[in-house]
Amino acid sequence: MSVPEGFQMVCEEPSHEGARDVINSNPYGPNAGDYLSNVSNFQLIESTLREGEQFANAFFDTEKKIEIAKALDDFGVDYIELTSPVASEQSRRDCEAICKLGLKAKILTHIRCHMDDARVAVETGVDGVDVVIGTSQFLRQYSHGKDMNYIAQSAIEVIEFVKSKGIEIRFSSEDSFRSDLVDLLNIYKTVDKIGVDRVGIADTVGCANPRQVYELVRTLKSVVKCDIECHFHNDTGCAIANAYTALEGGARLIDVSVLGIGERNGITPLGGLMARMIAADRDYVLSKYKLHKIRDLENLVAEAVQVNVPFNNPITGFCAFTHKAGIHAKAILANPSTYEILNPSDFGLTRYIHFANRLTGWNAIKSRVDQLNLDLTDEQCKEVTMKIKKMGDIRPLNIDDVDSIIKDFHTQIGTPALLPSSNNGSVLEPLEEEFSNTKRQRTI
Amino acid sequence: MSVPEGFQMVCEEPSHEGARDVINSNPYGPNAGDYLSNVSNFQLIESTLREGEQFANAFFDTEKKIEIAKALDDFGVDYIELTSPVASEQSRRDCEAICKLGLKAKILTHIRCHMDDARVAVETGVDGVDVVIGTSQFLRQYSHGKDMNYIAQSAIEVIEFVKSKGIEIRFSSEDSFRSDLVDLLNIYKTVDKIGVDRVGIADTVGCANPRQVYELVRTLKSVVKCDIECHFHNDTGCAIANAYTALEGGARLIDVSVLGIGERNGITPLGGLMARMIAADRDYVLSKYKLHKIRDLENLVAEAVQVNVPFNNPITGFCAFTHKAGIHAKAILANPSTYEILNPSDFGLTRYIHFANRLTGWNAIKSRVDQLNLDLTDEQCKEVTMKIKKMGDIRPLNIDDVDSIIKDFHTQIGTPALLPSSNNGSVLEPLEEEFSNTKRQRTI
Repeated sequence: MSVPEGFQMVCEEPSHEGARDVINSNPYGPNAGDYLSNVSNFQLIESTLREGEQFANAFFDTEKKIEIAKALDDFGVDYIELTSPVASEQSRRDCEAICKLGLKAKILTHIRCHMDDARVAVETGVDGVDVVIGTSQFLRQYSHGKDMNYIAQSAIEVIEFVKSKGIEIRFSSEDSFRSDLVDLLNIYKTVDKIGVDRVGIADTVGCANPRQVYELVRTLKSVVKCDIECHFHNDTGCAIANAYTALEGGARLIDVSVLGIGERNGITPLGGLMARMIAADRDYVLSKYKLHKIRDLENLVAEAVQVNVPFNNPITGFCAFTHKAGIHAKAILANPSTYEILNPSDFGLTRYIHFANRLTGWNAIKSRVDQLNLDLTDEQCKEVTMKIKKMGDIRPLNIDDVDSIIKDFHTQIGTPALLPSSNNGSVLEPLEEEFSNTKRQRTI
Repeated sequence: MSVPEGFQMVCEEPSHEGARDVINSNPYGPNAGDYLSNVSNFQLIESTLREGEQFANAFFDTEKKIEIAKALDDFGVDYIELTSPVASEQSRRDCEAICKLGLKAKILTHIRCHMDDARVAVETGVDGVDVVIGTSQFLRQYSHGKDMNYIAQSAIEVIEFVKSKGIEIRFSSEDSFRSDLVDLLNIYKTVDKIGVDRVGIADTVGCANPRQVYELVRTLKSVVKCDIECHFHNDTGCAIANAYTALEGGARLIDVSVLGIGERNGITPLGGLMARMIAADRDYVLSKYKLHKIRDLENLVAEAVQVNVPFNNPITGFCAFTHKAGIHAKAILANPSTYEILNPSDFGLTRYIHFANRLTGWNAIKSRVDQLNLDLTDEQCKEVTMKIKKMGDIRPLNIDDVDSIIKDFHTQIGTPALLPSSNNGSVLEPLEEEFSNTKRQRTI
């Protein structure tokens, strides 16, 4: 693995064992007060091939859809949701093709609450059908123009038809958080009674906040017996937190997509939710999902829709495990759990210390001195750190700059190196390599 | 403003007035049950020039720091936080230079809880000093190695010294959510008694979840009289939601940075928090902050640290106001509030319909037909929509493709255009322009 300039890979010791103990006993774990919580029992409905296809840049041909579906299945998602087969002729054929792959994940398709759509959906070979209809005043007025009685009748007709085919069925409202609460509970209670497998809450406009989510899920949990699925858009940046809080309130399934792609700026991202969930219940997450495949999965989809992985993406952002300020570097070198709740090795990734800058501290520089097999006292390390900070005040530094300053200083004080300086570049561990500016930009 | 290929700008009518009424009476507004809530009374501590300088790529020279400070001040942030003057000699000089700019925003610097740092800080000309010390078991053991008594004594000494200089003082714990609750409340109570201006809660490892945040803030609110400031890292994607929930619980000030840049993958982003807050209290946000400057501010910082604005960034992501699926497009054309909680014009931005794809619907195509000043019946629009979907099944489409299909169809049925077809490209409104693939990639 290449290392960006100015960065230092950090060895894995001391381990995260300490952190794990803390996690097991600390408030990040499932809240004992949430006796309905599914934080340790959640499932993923992966919607890159449905919601994600509604992302502005998305055009997936059949081959790409199959590649993505297989990668998602390999990662371990519980369900894969596909675009409605009535969206276009090819959408229908692709749905059929993916159903025939024999994946472990159950295959769903997402349709309007209408018999015309349902009749096509059940013929595709899917394991389940996700039905949705707008229930907010806005959508009832400007989208389908129907009242709640009509919605209930359509829902019953579609649900009973899909059930008669032996296929899983979910009923979801749309724009749930702007829907009348009594209307919502009424329709959910109705569909639960006739045996729907799941009911869905959808924050279609992306504006719910966590405590609202918790309250609505808890209330709904007291009304229906079936599982609750939640779908959160990210317009106001709360899609991951809302998903977590929904699980705390008793929801069981969360809709995600790779990198969160979807309508507008998308929904709860798979990777971000994994970060959130592994902090809450590492054992459960590791037992179900192949987290070290997250990066490949994100790269696959990013390339398919021609976007870059955001620089600040959870887990896979290029600096998600890079520590810079001197005070952080010092503590990370002593114990990574000090400034990390996630262990990069869980994702097949590595942590770095960015020591070549003016915010650096003498502990980070001392660690570099040791890597170079030079022998300096703490006082000397502090002295050379001041020189590095002075240079870092003038311009951005890279590892070469810092190494030169250290070696010059070392030569001046006349202490012999422990090993020949020609050993630079092949120091034993941890390993560091140069990384050109061009290469680095590509990772951003 | 240029329009990406395959997209259609949407006129502003009907207005968001309806949405605003809903916001004022709906659950997105401040929760009446949160009588301590500061959702409608929050302040921003902007830390791009402190936390942001700890971002891996950040190197700000004096000129760039001043440019950013002025832009932040113009935007309307309440405080600007700067790197410790003891971090390096230039950091101290830059701090002094920014203090002399005469900005409306108060200038803070961020130091360790140590008299050596405090003595330097008070001489820079800052309006306030933000003091921080690690209080978690991890940081006490691996960072500074001090016990809570030592921390309290240092805090008192530093606070009384800074206060004696007539300067604002904040005391913050670090890694607050892994600190012992009794220790925390003890130290906060102590510093509140001696007259600290603010106490800070910091989720230094980025793992707190919203309901924990709410509970800790509410508890702290019952212990101290001073304001509460909160700082959230984004490792598990909850930094915006945690900030919002902290305000609900009674915190008053939130630390943000432009694009969220900071250690690892950063903190609560300014733009994302603005999205969250305007959905909660539009009038308050618009009265304080120049939201139409968000994009320029983000571009300024993105360029300075050599990153791209994430494709899915709240507000300024290239498709944050782009609607694609036919069912969304239909409703947006009838009333944008159906699928938007944010009004793009509040940010000087525009909404688009992406109609050139296989998920399109006949209402979006009919709107395009009208723009082209062609006359087709609803049935004919449905017919041409099927042709467009068929082409969209084969490959990605752009506006030209769709226009050609529509015009061919129109010619075939032999209905005369309402206006000469040469008018294409200068239709009255809404305006659309071509946007090359190359240009578009740059915006991602």
